[in-house]
Amino acid sequence: MSPAEPKSQELNLKPATITLTTDFGTGDSYVAQMKGVIAGIAPHARVIDGTHDLPAQNVLAAAVVLDSMVDAFTDGTIHLVVVDPGVGTGRAAVAVKTSRFTLVGPDNGVFTLVLERYPPTAIVRLTDEAYHRDSVSVTFHGRDIFAPVAGYLANGVAIERLGEPVTTLVNLNIPEPREAGSRLTGVVLVADHFGNLVTNLSRDRCDVWLGQRDMAGVVISVKGYEIGAVRRTYADVEPGEAVAYFGSSGRLELAVRNGSAREKFGEQVSVTLCVTKP
Amino acid sequence: MSPAEPKSQELNLKPATITLTTDFGTGDSYVAQMKGVIAGIAPHARVIDGTHDLPAQNVLAAAVVLDSMVDAFTDGTIHLVVVDPGVGTGRAAVAVKTSRFTLVGPDNGVFTLVLERYPPTAIVRLTDEAYHRDSVSVTFHGRDIFAPVAGYLANGVAIERLGEPVTTLVNLNIPEPREAGSRLTGVVLVADHFGNLVTNLSRDRCDVWLGQRDMAGVVISVKGYEIGAVRRTYADVEPGEAVAYFGSSGRLELAVRNGSAREKFGEQVSVTLCVTKP
Amino acid sequence: MSPAEPKSQELNLKPATITLTTDFGTGDSYVAQMKGVIAGIAPHARVIDGTHDLPAQNVLAAAVVLDSMVDAFTDGTIHLVVVDPGVGTGRAAVAVKTSRFTLVGPDNGVFTLVLERYPPTAIVRLTDEAYHRDSVSVTFHGRDIFAPVAGYLANGVAIERLGEPVTTLVNLNIPEPREAGSRLTGVVLVADHFGNLVTNLSRDRCDVWLGQRDMAGVVISVKGYEIGAVRRTYADVEPGEAVAYFGSSGRLELAVRNGSAREKFGEQVSVTLCVTKP
Repeated sequence: MSPAEPKSQELNLKPATITLTTDFGTGDSYVAQMKGVIAGIAPHARVIDGTHDLPAQNVLAAAVVLDSMVDAFTDGTIHLVVVDPGVGTGRAAVAVKTSRFTLVGPDNGVFTLVLERYPPTAIVRLTDEAYHRDSVSVTFHGRDIFAPVAGYLANGVAIERLGEPVTTLVNLNIPEPREAGSRLTGVVLVADHFGNLVTNLSRDRCDVWLGQRDMAGVVISVKGYEIGAVRRTYADVEPGEAVAYFGSSGRLELAVRNGSAREKFGEQVSVTLCVTKP
Repeated sequence: MSPAEPKSQELNLKPATITLTTDFGTGDSYVAQMKGVIAGIAPHARVIDGTHDLPAQNVLAAAVVLDSMVDAFTDGTIHLVVVDPGVGTGRAAVAVKTSRFTLVGPDNGVFTLVLERYPPTAIVRLTDEAYHRDSVSVTFHGRDIFAPVAGYLANGVAIERLGEPVTTLVNLNIPEPREAGSRLTGVVLVADHFGNLVTNLSRDRCDVWLGQRDMAGVVISVKGYEIGAVRRTYADVEPGEAVAYFGSSGRLELAVRNGSAREKFGEQVSVTLCVTKP
Repeated sequence: MSPAEPKSQELNLKPATITLTTDFGTGDSYVAQMKGVIAGIAPHARVIDGTHDLPAQNVLAAAVVLDSMVDAFTDGTIHLVVVDPGVGTGRAAVAVKTSRFTLVGPDNGVFTLVLERYPPTAIVRLTDEAYHRDSVSVTFHGRDIFAPVAGYLANGVAIERLGEPVTTLVNLNIPEPREAGSRLTGVVLVADHFGNLVTNLSRDRCDVWLGQRDMAGVVISVKGYEIGAVRRTYADVEPGEAVAYFGSSGRLELAVRNGSAREKFGEQVSVTLCVTKP
């Protein structure tokens, strides 16, 4: 199958940005191969690495990282995520359009978190092989399907051209915070490079729970260890002390100043906010 | 020595892509320095990282990675490889042109595999210092010779300008598969990020050996452990099982589904294909 | 606060290069978020990674890496460094102009080494919020202050617009070589990816100390272990032997050929040059 005519007719040289987020690591050429394919199709597109060091096949970690980064990019950015334990099975390959960006990747739940904030306006299964590489391998759809599709999207190809519309996506089962009396309990989703622990407690969710009450009257406990009120940042406590604050992604995070909350608490941790003043 | 006049006269702003593959790691500024030099000479060139995490001074690993990636790039790409245990000794610095791309790097065998598939159409020793950095260090030819040469090539400088033509290159002694009766035995060349083991058994080599026989009648054994027929992908076996399939680079690979073939078998492994049905 | 009018009026599409050097690692999306912000403000700017794998909060390591890389970049480059243990405290955010490049980052000493070679021609505290992101987090000034400032500088905004002029910067206390009789003693500043040890003994500093004497009459000792004269490169000794030479950054380095000087000597090492021939 040769690349369809409309692709070049629609060629659009508006600046386009594609981000790449994978669990491929950086020790092989897999990421480079994806970039080579994109450069061949959309030479004007800027490609920015999200990260390639996601824990292997960890769809939740990919979902959290994607959610943390989309707001830093301009409208129209194309975010490509390839954490794909189901490659070579029947899992669908999809593109998803929202009001602000377009997502490309496997339909395995990796878009769950970001789509809670930016609902899809169009979802397409990537079934039109004219927008794939000429020869598609069984094990590397990142290079053979997702990269070319991202390149054609950067060239201005409409998402509807890429395949059949669908209406639902696989959803990741992400734990919800639980309310009980004066308590709101969340869990840690991932740890970052500094050992900070990022929770499922977004600032918005906490505000809804607080209602008229004041965050200043809330104390945080982690594994039975009380770490006081929510602070602005880790610099508000002494070196070695644990601290909770809303991080740059808008989620409650746990840190240890000049240390590692992951080492102190582990990653399988629940975090409870408790109202102490009515 | 000042940069020669013809360099700017020949300036060519066709889109150009340069890939960089090294064993420099990403913890220092070595790679950044190479990119700074390239940007100063060829500001229009796109630079794509192959990998910088090759095992230190492992020329075979570099040769395999280079061979795995060239087919994903458009014609005219310049591939720069700096795994260079002989820097500062008498080893030659070379550029090699083929029908599809140009290679730049030390003459230590790193191009052996890719040149088996794309024979050289021109080879030049990089002896013209007009195309080097003004001051060339003894230990960092990547920055001082290879990066500027790649930049000038991206600007359209003809390879012949870069130095003296030569006719032979150092060849890496890469183990050949061995045939014996109904068996073909290869070895593992490298392991990838996922612990998959990449062998010296290319699909083409296997097809030649099979002749009229059918791959469906072949079983694979690794260290005396029989792992059945060649499959399409690791998703064709149960989690924890070993599997052999032709990977995205066209070579027979060994994997363990949701696991690591490197951990299961080690890297010093021979792999035998055996015809069971005549 | 909305982006000030002058920013777009001054828009300048001269090629611009921004380098990014951080201790953020590459496992999260922090670096990608900075690049997204830059791409939104200065889509024409080329962004080159210095390194993101600096030891966490190690300002000295950042200072050494920055100093090693600036000379490989063309005039006008903007170097952004975010190793920022004081984020969220009162530490200043600054931009510093020199004759060759502009620096952006926290005022914590990270520019000390490079400014010894290229004295500042202007220093500004980044107090004008019109050049920051609309909403500035407490913990991620890399994304919210430093990245947008670098973007506006790439667009041609004059450094004076970014805030209030200041005249002094925090200086890192970097050990000076000590002279005693016929000896000059330095220390190791950092180890690189190959385990080579980079000292505070620059070639210029050694030349001043040598005066009319000849480097050929100098022997090097490390932890009481004598390793002979300064060589050109590690290839001048046998595999496994230690060697001292002036590295690609112009500093005396210790290496072990085909080995690691860090493993042999550790990183807390003093290095003595001793004149043996008057």
